Amino acid sequence: MKTSRRKFLRYGLGLTAATAFPSIWTRKSVTGYSNGDIEQRLSIGRGLEGLTKNDLATPTLVLDLDVFESNLEKMSRHAKEVSIELRPHAKTHKCIEVARRQIDAGALGVCTATISEAEALAEGGINGLLITSEMVGRDKIRRLVQMTRNHPDTMSVIDHPDHAKQLSQAAVEASLELNVLVDIDPIGRRTGVSAGKPAIDLAHYAEKLPNLKLRGIHSYSGPSSHVTGFEERRAHSRRVMAAPIETFFKLQEEGLPMEILSGGSTGTYNIDPEFEGMTELQVGSYVFMDVDYRIIGGKSGPDYDDFGQSLKVIATVISKNHDDRATIDAGFKAFATDRDFGPDIIGISGITYRFGGDEHGILQLDDPSREVKLGDRLEFVVPHCDPNVNLYDRIYCLRGEKVEEIWPVVGKYV
Amino acid sequence: MKTSRRKFLRYGLGLTAATAFPSIWTRKSVTGYSNGDIEQRLSIGRGLEGLTKNDLATPTLVLDLDVFESNLEKMSRHAKEVSIELRPHAKTHKCIEVARRQIDAGALGVCTATISEAEALAEGGINGLLITSEMVGRDKIRRLVQMTRNHPDTMSVIDHPDHAKQLSQAAVEASLELNVLVDIDPIGRRTGVSAGKPAIDLAHYAEKLPNLKLRGIHSYSGPSSHVTGFEERRAHSRRVMAAPIETFFKLQEEGLPMEILSGGSTGTYNIDPEFEGMTELQVGSYVFMDVDYRIIGGKSGPDYDDFGQSLKVIATVISKNHDDRATIDAGFKAFATDRDFGPDIIGISGITYRFGGDEHGILQLDDPSREVKLGDRLEFVVPHCDPNVNLYDRIYCLRGEKVEEIWPVVGKYV
Repeated sequence: MKTSRRKFLRYGLGLTAATAFPSIWTRKSVTGYSNGDIEQRLSIGRGLEGLTKNDLATPTLVLDLDVFESNLEKMSRHAKEVSIELRPHAKTHKCIEVARRQIDAGALGVCTATISEAEALAEGGINGLLITSEMVGRDKIRRLVQMTRNHPDTMSVIDHPDHAKQLSQAAVEASLELNVLVDIDPIGRRTGVSAGKPAIDLAHYAEKLPNLKLRGIHSYSGPSSHVTGFEERRAHSRRVMAAPIETFFKLQEEGLPMEILSGGSTGTYNIDPEFEGMTELQVGSYVFMDVDYRIIGGKSGPDYDDFGQSLKVIATVISKNHDDRATIDAGFKAFATDRDFGPDIIGISGITYRFGGDEHGILQLDDPSREVKLGDRLEFVVPHCDPNVNLYDRIYCLRGEKVEEIWPVVGKYV
Repeated sequence: MKTSRRKFLRYGLGLTAATAFPSIWTRKSVTGYSNGDIEQRLSIGRGLEGLTKNDLATPTLVLDLDVFESNLEKMSRHAKEVSIELRPHAKTHKCIEVARRQIDAGALGVCTATISEAEALAEGGINGLLITSEMVGRDKIRRLVQMTRNHPDTMSVIDHPDHAKQLSQAAVEASLELNVLVDIDPIGRRTGVSAGKPAIDLAHYAEKLPNLKLRGIHSYSGPSSHVTGFEERRAHSRRVMAAPIETFFKLQEEGLPMEILSGGSTGTYNIDPEFEGMTELQVGSYVFMDVDYRIIGGKSGPDYDDFGQSLKVIATVISKNHDDRATIDAGFKAFATDRDFGPDIIGISGITYRFGGDEHGILQLDDPSREVKLGDRLEFVVPHCDPNVNLYDRIYCLRGEKVEEIWPVVGKYV
């Protein structure tokens, strides 16, 4: 979608507090537009014409559209080749436009982790939503019912009979059907019923409940996705997915409606389709990639590079008082911190990033391949894309250096 | 400020994508309002009447107003007793209303870490702003100039002659004065010029530059704030602050305008006022507190409890399939992850939280003091308050269980 003021407002960005800078439009030399400046520009009818990445205030989140589109195309082609469906995970991007392009490229729909993401994407015209977390609690159940009224193909997951019963009651009260998958825990980690008898019992229980429509099995092995080494990852996924898949076939034999077996990740996109039974993949990170995926290793080398690093943060050197160190304006609030590594710096070797607090990052200049100066704008691959996107309210989309579109990040809050 | 729809819009929350649920207003039994539901409620002229913390969708960020107000009062009283001024750091809270209350309680103004925070607070009527990061780069300098035009008492920091010169040139072009403090690095960490000759030279250089108004010294020792043990913390701060303070006095002797020496933190609020020379403290976390501060130890015990834990996240148990484990709907996107510990659970002992991904937290039920059931709503003290607040767009303020106000989190983005 092309960015316009109307769409900005519609998707909830609005004009921020920092918009009252009309004087800048009269000065030709100015670069470094804040988000507010750019909204101002759109509000007075100027488009993005002439705007480059160098005009953006830092720290800012940018997307290389060429790399992103190549990632989309590669995953789509792969899925067709191995005859598996895609329902990519939108918790990675939280962008209506990314979801739309994934569906245009052949995906059945998208997955979301939260009801807020599902609502925001649905409002943006996205169908085929699978919410991969249990919608427990009155607020989430009420909203799931409302979603389903407007988008009857919405699905969610269950891992407990009490929860299944609550969903059934809410569906009966609302006179509609809720689509559910039984969530099977492949590895004893966070959600899901155990494979085998507990899952089979739950499936039969749910199948008998009024106004629940059982559609299949959800089984996601997060730990498999980041096992280092392709063969190790393959062995891990094969081991932990064996029981959920066996349960899926058992339930099919018993005559239950088992049309869907959803799982997999960007780490196992070329592994899980080997398993007979898998019907769709919920790959997420492949659109953006990050350091977290780079280091797991690919089929043929130490770096996983099946997909390109399309997502970057641009930051500015704001302090340079030591030969061996520079400080940038990007810390805990600019980069996700849930891994034990920081971002990769792009285009310069011999530099190590470490966090320097909420708003600062320290560049250790061990043996830099070029000089780093006060005011330099540097680019970084993010440590972990999903929570990193969540720190921003928009992604500036670049074609080369030009800002071509702006995609709001939606569904961030409850 | 009382929350109204107008103010919501003014401070940039607006109506989000997830607002189209009018049917809920006709059903008496419903609880668990999303942010969108509550904005809808405000938009149709209903206030917060009757809304309690149990009505809020999870995960949500809440503030205990009684504890918060007691924290404000305690710090204010302390500052008066030890004859030091306060300019509390607003990067902790990013809330106009918190800043207003801090100033009402006697603070000179507030500090911010970014130009966006400063702009948003200034628009909310806050004066006496000190931006504690170097405003390097054309975007930040332009915005600093614009800020200063409307709020002439705005101050920022310099740590390099090139930067001082850029600020001076921008100030001359704009025909105004920029107030600056020389940022002295007390411990070789992230920003700031070294104490002694480098700082003295920079101060003299800046003092001679046209349209720069030298106001004093900024010297913040982040590492001192979290040294474990009161006496150890005191010794650390005394050691690292000695050189900046000596430099401050030297510059005073040399006749430079040195009216301000700003530093200190919630960890050293009762230490740094002992140092002759300090004129103001930039305490931040005391308003909310967090696990990060609890564990540094107080004057008289293993926990730092000078200020109360006023900020909490409410989460819901969404999966309970094992005796020794429960899963909640709060992970990397609900709790800050920059420390190597998670949140504290409130009111139940024998439970350990660990992160379970972007949207999930795992509760290890080692020896829980009460049963944890599917659908339970549990409360947590956040690991580190500053980046935790940054994950939300509003704080629900509670008086007891009642929602009394809603404070937007502002200035989050560039």
